[in-house]
Amino acid sequence: MSPHRPPGEPERPVAVPALPDLPEATVARLPEYLRALHNLAENGHETVSSEWLATAAGVNSAKLRKDLSHLGSYGTRGVGYDVALLIDQIEYVLGLTQRRSVALVGVGNLGHALAGYDGFATRGFRIAALFDADPVRVGEEINGLVVRHVDELSRVAIEESIAIGVIATPAAAAQRVADRLVAGGVTSILNFAPCVLTVPDGVDVRKVDLAVELQILSFHEHRKASLTALPAAGAATLTPLPGDLAATDPQEAIGT
Amino acid sequence: MSPHRPPGEPERPVAVPALPDLPEATVARLPEYLRALHNLAENGHETVSSEWLATAAGVNSAKLRKDLSHLGSYGTRGVGYDVALLIDQIEYVLGLTQRRSVALVGVGNLGHALAGYDGFATRGFRIAALFDADPVRVGEEINGLVVRHVDELSRVAIEESIAIGVIATPAAAAQRVADRLVAGGVTSILNFAPCVLTVPDGVDVRKVDLAVELQILSFHEHRKASLTALPAAGAATLTPLPGDLAATDPQEAIGT
Repeated sequence: MSPHRPPGEPERPVAVPALPDLPEATVARLPEYLRALHNLAENGHETVSSEWLATAAGVNSAKLRKDLSHLGSYGTRGVGYDVALLIDQIEYVLGLTQRRSVALVGVGNLGHALAGYDGFATRGFRIAALFDADPVRVGEEINGLVVRHVDELSRVAIEESIAIGVIATPAAAAQRVADRLVAGGVTSILNFAPCVLTVPDGVDVRKVDLAVELQILSFHEHRKASLTALPAAGAATLTPLPGDLAATDPQEAIGT
Repeated sequence: MSPHRPPGEPERPVAVPALPDLPEATVARLPEYLRALHNLAENGHETVSSEWLATAAGVNSAKLRKDLSHLGSYGTRGVGYDVALLIDQIEYVLGLTQRRSVALVGVGNLGHALAGYDGFATRGFRIAALFDADPVRVGEEINGLVVRHVDELSRVAIEESIAIGVIATPAAAAQRVADRLVAGGVTSILNFAPCVLTVPDGVDVRKVDLAVELQILSFHEHRKASLTALPAAGAATLTPLPGDLAATDPQEAIGT
């Protein structure tokens, strides 16, 4: 991935160094730092200040310094961070020194778009197999890959050493797909289906629900509107909320 | 949205009730509860226990009860929550009692898929306008909407009372699109472009970066592999990390 790492360096199956146990929020910010660092490297920069890097990643610089200190990276006073070294460190921690194989299940509207998304390949992932349950879709070729039937999922996942499964099926099919991914040894799942998946311990699931993102924004729209619409006097003109929503109820939350 | 709300009830422009100031994490879970509640209502259930609802939404029941207590909703001991009332309360808080108009900018691979995504319409949003900068795309019809040139964005946003802008352009174009949305009065943006946007105070941005999601999963894959691959003895056989990554450096983080 990084041009600063010797090419072809083998993975070490036994003496893998222990990874620091990072806060989840730090892990989520490392990809942002990495993207900003790659931009810097492409533009010929060899060092970067924490302020610059923080701005490029959209965080404050104290948070950035704390995040990077978890990696044992503190920069040099007056100089900043070494761009190439920091790229290596973050790519190492994120496990991006090997290209991970991804299986994508469900090549409908969204899945089809994901199958053709350049961003995966350029950031360390290879879509290795596509699956669908629809006989019309099976056999279709997308970006050089032939869509296989989902019945083959577990077998192919083992054969192709799939690291990450992406579920882009309707909600009703998603749990069954997750079960098949797990049966095929996949321990990381990215779920676009609007439902909650049940998986064994040791399997990580991340969920992206596009409508939920809009609903969260809707809350903020609603809240902004309620603040601007409120008359200065306030309380007396408030209309009741459904079920006395805003009432301060002294009753304790009970286990219903 | 909810069948339990009188149809055609007008928005009240002045006496809007003040919304509770909810923790962001609670706001993010409300759509999950709402989806589970709609499923229950469709299946004829009138009440639900906190345990059942928590399981369906993938959280623990103590967290669910705390979240709902922010809404003033405590359920009834031995009976649970009233499904229809709780739907009304959550839809009210999320601002889903009016259908919000969405402008989608960038109808390439991903944007095209988003334009055709049913999940938006069924959960309270209406894609009202599509934009692109590519002359080949402008004029194309997608799901009954004609793609307009991005130069028209600010004007159309005002005319169509766009509440939320969705950016699905390449990273290089995203800031300019955000500026145009803001100029058109849009104060909520969902950004799929892999970059950080700069917006004025009062504009909410949520970001979905699909490759970042995979990179976070990659970290967990890497970590799981390092744990299983570690020999029992451990430390002595550890290989060095790049730049002494795992070293515990007593040096304080400095402002570089």
